[in-house]
Amino acid sequence: MKKPIIGIIMGSDSDLPIMQEAAKVLDEFKIPYELTIVSAHRTPKRLYEYASSALQKGIKVIIAGAGGSAHLPGMVASITPLPVIGVPMKTKNLDGLDSLLSIVQMPPGVPVATVAINGAKNAAILAVSILGTQDSAMQKKISKYKNSLKKQVIKKAKKLGKFGYKKYLSKV
Amino acid sequence: MKKPIIGIIMGSDSDLPIMQEAAKVLDEFKIPYELTIVSAHRTPKRLYEYASSALQKGIKVIIAGAGGSAHLPGMVASITPLPVIGVPMKTKNLDGLDSLLSIVQMPPGVPVATVAINGAKNAAILAVSILGTQDSAMQKKISKYKNSLKKQVIKKAKKLGKFGYKKYLSKV
Amino acid sequence: MKKPIIGIIMGSDSDLPIMQEAAKVLDEFKIPYELTIVSAHRTPKRLYEYASSALQKGIKVIIAGAGGSAHLPGMVASITPLPVIGVPMKTKNLDGLDSLLSIVQMPPGVPVATVAINGAKNAAILAVSILGTQDSAMQKKISKYKNSLKKQVIKKAKKLGKFGYKKYLSKV
Amino acid sequence: MKKPIIGIIMGSDSDLPIMQEAAKVLDEFKIPYELTIVSAHRTPKRLYEYASSALQKGIKVIIAGAGGSAHLPGMVASITPLPVIGVPMKTKNLDGLDSLLSIVQMPPGVPVATVAINGAKNAAILAVSILGTQDSAMQKKISKYKNSLKKQVIKKAKKLGKFGYKKYLSKV
Amino acid sequence: MKKPIIGIIMGSDSDLPIMQEAAKVLDEFKIPYELTIVSAHRTPKRLYEYASSALQKGIKVIIAGAGGSAHLPGMVASITPLPVIGVPMKTKNLDGLDSLLSIVQMPPGVPVATVAINGAKNAAILAVSILGTQDSAMQKKISKYKNSLKKQVIKKAKKLGKFGYKKYLSKV
Amino acid sequence: MKKPIIGIIMGSDSDLPIMQEAAKVLDEFKIPYELTIVSAHRTPKRLYEYASSALQKGIKVIIAGAGGSAHLPGMVASITPLPVIGVPMKTKNLDGLDSLLSIVQMPPGVPVATVAINGAKNAAILAVSILGTQDSAMQKKISKYKNSLKKQVIKKAKKLGKFGYKKYLSKV
Amino acid sequence: MKKPIIGIIMGSDSDLPIMQEAAKVLDEFKIPYELTIVSAHRTPKRLYEYASSALQKGIKVIIAGAGGSAHLPGMVASITPLPVIGVPMKTKNLDGLDSLLSIVQMPPGVPVATVAINGAKNAAILAVSILGTQDSAMQKKISKYKNSLKKQVIKKAKKLGKFGYKKYLSKV
Amino acid sequence: MKKPIIGIIMGSDSDLPIMQEAAKVLDEFKIPYELTIVSAHRTPKRLYEYASSALQKGIKVIIAGAGGSAHLPGMVASITPLPVIGVPMKTKNLDGLDSLLSIVQMPPGVPVATVAINGAKNAAILAVSILGTQDSAMQKKISKYKNSLKKQVIKKAKKLGKFGYKKYLSKV
Repeated sequence: MKKPIIGIIMGSDSDLPIMQEAAKVLDEFKIPYELTIVSAHRTPKRLYEYASSALQKGIKVIIAGAGGSAHLPGMVASITPLPVIGVPMKTKNLDGLDSLLSIVQMPPGVPVATVAINGAKNAAILAVSILGTQDSAMQKKISKYKNSLKKQVIKKAKKLGKFGYKKYLSKV
Repeated sequence: MKKPIIGIIMGSDSDLPIMQEAAKVLDEFKIPYELTIVSAHRTPKRLYEYASSALQKGIKVIIAGAGGSAHLPGMVASITPLPVIGVPMKTKNLDGLDSLLSIVQMPPGVPVATVAINGAKNAAILAVSILGTQDSAMQKKISKYKNSLKKQVIKKAKKLGKFGYKKYLSKV
Repeated sequence: MKKPIIGIIMGSDSDLPIMQEAAKVLDEFKIPYELTIVSAHRTPKRLYEYASSALQKGIKVIIAGAGGSAHLPGMVASITPLPVIGVPMKTKNLDGLDSLLSIVQMPPGVPVATVAINGAKNAAILAVSILGTQDSAMQKKISKYKNSLKKQVIKKAKKLGKFGYKKYLSKV
Repeated sequence: MKKPIIGIIMGSDSDLPIMQEAAKVLDEFKIPYELTIVSAHRTPKRLYEYASSALQKGIKVIIAGAGGSAHLPGMVASITPLPVIGVPMKTKNLDGLDSLLSIVQMPPGVPVATVAINGAKNAAILAVSILGTQDSAMQKKISKYKNSLKKQVIKKAKKLGKFGYKKYLSKV
Repeated sequence: MKKPIIGIIMGSDSDLPIMQEAAKVLDEFKIPYELTIVSAHRTPKRLYEYASSALQKGIKVIIAGAGGSAHLPGMVASITPLPVIGVPMKTKNLDGLDSLLSIVQMPPGVPVATVAINGAKNAAILAVSILGTQDSAMQKKISKYKNSLKKQVIKKAKKLGKFGYKKYLSKV
Repeated sequence: MKKPIIGIIMGSDSDLPIMQEAAKVLDEFKIPYELTIVSAHRTPKRLYEYASSALQKGIKVIIAGAGGSAHLPGMVASITPLPVIGVPMKTKNLDGLDSLLSIVQMPPGVPVATVAINGAKNAAILAVSILGTQDSAMQKKISKYKNSLKKQVIKKAKKLGKFGYKKYLSKV
Repeated sequence: MKKPIIGIIMGSDSDLPIMQEAAKVLDEFKIPYELTIVSAHRTPKRLYEYASSALQKGIKVIIAGAGGSAHLPGMVASITPLPVIGVPMKTKNLDGLDSLLSIVQMPPGVPVATVAINGAKNAAILAVSILGTQDSAMQKKISKYKNSLKKQVIKKAKKLGKFGYKKYLSKV
Repeated sequence: MKKPIIGIIMGSDSDLPIMQEAAKVLDEFKIPYELTIVSAHRTPKRLYEYASSALQKGIKVIIAGAGGSAHLPGMVASITPLPVIGVPMKTKNLDGLDSLLSIVQMPPGVPVATVAINGAKNAAILAVSILGTQDSAMQKKISKYKNSLKKQVIKKAKKLGKFGYKKYLSKV
């Protein structure tokens, strides 16, 4: 694999079933990335090192997933000049509202680009569109991808029109 | 002014007192931008035209502020391959929780990079960091900016240490 | 089937198990309708076309279901002069509070008639009562329908009175 | 004034400063309406009488505003076959979230067409669009009204483009 | 059974699995009660009749359970001078927060004595304590009941002290 | 004044501007009451003594107002067999949602009759209706009071009908 | 076992499956503790006795778990000068938001050290760190424990790096 | 002043008007403390240095106030073995709910002792009670302080009893 240009990090391996969606998108777009576990609370030094070395390693965008008192994305953003995308993880007790507010309500000067709760897939698509600002091939991929979404909807709409809702549902 | 590379749009001119913070940051960073009003609900066609022409005009990042049923950022993101940053406006009745959820909870495939409620300043800083992925001068500006934030904190901490909290507060 | 006068649209076929409740009510009331998928975010152009042609096609009321950042009902309402009924879909993470606020908090000038979370059935009944403003036969159907609801309650109350709560529950 | 075809009711005269917005829209659209106070909790019989006689009096749509434990719109909807539009009033303690949930979460069979918190203006516009389903002149008025909203936005956008945000704000 | 002095009503037989807890408490306390279904929205007239005749029938306290846009307890309270206890039912979508706010936030003049979400048991105990204000035998029953709760806790505490938490949990 | 039969207590004298509304209602109804400050957290012994002696002193209903972590009503209810009415005080930070949930969500066995946030007036009316279960004179007062509420509404409705909303508002 | 220096109490044995996590941590740290059931609402006297005797018995920190209208931690804190740690239990209806607000929003003068919803494990770790302020051996144990957390993360990160996310997930 | 044993830190000098309440309590209790500004997001290195050196400097408890995406208390707790008390600052947009959830919902292993929104005073009292676990003089101060709270309540209750609520309120 080529040198990674996206860094995907998460606070715990329990976030991996969700965060793998980001990796899958990047695999699909053939964008080299690295993926690892960095816990703000259990490995604060590792967080510091990861965030302060990412730029030098060639990383261009960091995707960080965290849940509950979700400090990982914001702390990384406080250290690196790179754009940081935060993915609030759904939590057992408050459904991810805690994660969302912990990540999105950053103070002036240190933004985190927050996506939906459990929105790891969208984090990767956003990362690609950021890369697209310097790479028109990437941008075309995004356009193509959005076009494929459109086609899927239209295909389903046709199928629904053809079969009617009862048959359609019985087939799903 | 040079050709704009950032587009700042908002749903209403009542959002301008907040959204101007984005413009001020870009002024400070000397980044050419355009700023206008595009209402998802009152000018849906204008929204469509703005979003579908932005890339061709040379825009690289779009910042969109909206409140309540805040559809502007998500609809723009559905049309353009450019990264879209959403600013949820504080609202009179629900304090911006409605705006935040309307903007951040986008479905798979169409992300909006959401910042804090009323976080127009951070939207601009995020936009600059996105530009920084292709422009190391820009990236240095971000690092310098974050450094200046640090210096302000340290200066205030020193002043607080020198005067004690009572005098410090009486001076503010 | 006769020319449809109600349009039922939804953002995704994953909304169909809920949105079919609207179709069933219209089937029961023998009101011709069309039902299709229109995604605000994946098919914005289709949304524009659907909304701007509905009136000419003879549609009188549009029912639109959407979840999360639920932009479909509001965007349709921004384009058509027809009354638009919004159905907030229950979501996995925030239980539909995001959908509800995204749909109901529309700005002055562009209302969406919002019903309960997952309230597709009620959306159809509301549509019929709207048609009833121009068609007294329709209005009588609504009255009759509400009367049947009353009868069901009274029948159950009688059964409960006869059997007592323990037996009643063991029979259900 | 001609025989009223819209009924505007509210739970208390303290709701009138908000609910008058509905009346103003109908004045503007030259649609005859009646406006009165009907309290679900203090005048339950009056509620019953109002709701059960509205249809016979020629009313076609009822707009009901209420706050807190907001039972007026739902109770009216339980009695009349007419479409009922509910306006959740902002409340002192919970900002209208209580009103919104009390009004919108109606059980299957008895919908209330809910608009935004304090959205009396939109309630009236929705009522007009409902009348528009039987009256193409009305529908044209709605289209014209939405067009005027568009023009205002475009005018403001031009002004903003001409003056820049600083001058624009100093003029407002 | 003797003439009922407590009325237990609920909006739907789907509330019965919860509302039966109130009946069981009254069975245990040997207090005659009646239990039936009265839907505010599907049987508004029945609601009116129930509430306006309860006092004459000898009912002293009314317990009313309802969910979502929960209007039953408040509407009953608007009609009768009897104390009304409201039980907010847990709902599928908003966990009963909608029911709670619909019931508890009554306007000045018309209170509903609200208990916890799904708190049907407590509604009955509250009803008994209300009867106890005129009947010292009843009051003693309440004291005895609360004493039995205490004894259960102390018994469990002893068992926990004896076995330790691991054995205790394995036995449960 | 006669021997008090209602006890009004509150956690702090800062609650008095709201809690006096309960006293005013009882003054109006000529019901003897006592009113004092009992803090669950600052005077736990006083709470214990107050709650365990209230019955013997002749108190029949206790009204307890508290805010934030509002433990006063529930703790009093845990000690006395009397009915306890809880008034959640509006709080500076969470608008009384904390007070409401602290008071209403009592465990099985120990109910608190909860009224609206800042609903001290309703607490007193509820107390009177509870006394009314043993005193038909009291019950008539409640009916008369509710009737006076009705008359006020009807008077205002007439005035509104006569003057129209513009004049009505300019007079208020 | 040596004389207990930590008291773990909970409102009900239904809290034990969660609260045992606190006991397990103390077992691991070899810190003597006592564990029992004290219900604020069902055994208010026992609460009073427990809280007022804890200091004399040699208890240094009290951990109290409670759910819903969670009054146990705050009431204990109102009686003892010892630090009290509150554990908000997840609840069936409001997911523990009620417990959290009931415990954390204590008035000036009587703090409760609140941890996360269901955070019994963290309550124990916090208790150990409090003991550590007077016992450097204890403090070293905390440092060692936090170090072990770090090692686990790093071990998992290595494993993830070695196997890649797909294999890693299939092994878990 | 003697060597500080409590560290009070806050994310911004805008938190000082609230956080000074902690300092005032420690002044009153004659406990040496240090007070400074440490921003998690603007001075991450300073945070790291502060947290990792606090123990060696003789600090025994750290009080950390922060608002919005409030990461300061949790990040400090991730680095030091000392007990960390978190003070969620009220915020302009979400009233401090964001701060509260960001601080309290820490993952297993790294607790933060969270107090009420804006509860700086209680943070200091909690810190003193923690010191009290090793210093009986301190513990007596806490008992004395709580006793003084009791006396204030009783004094006010007497005054209220003497003057009645109307005079009492007019005097305040």
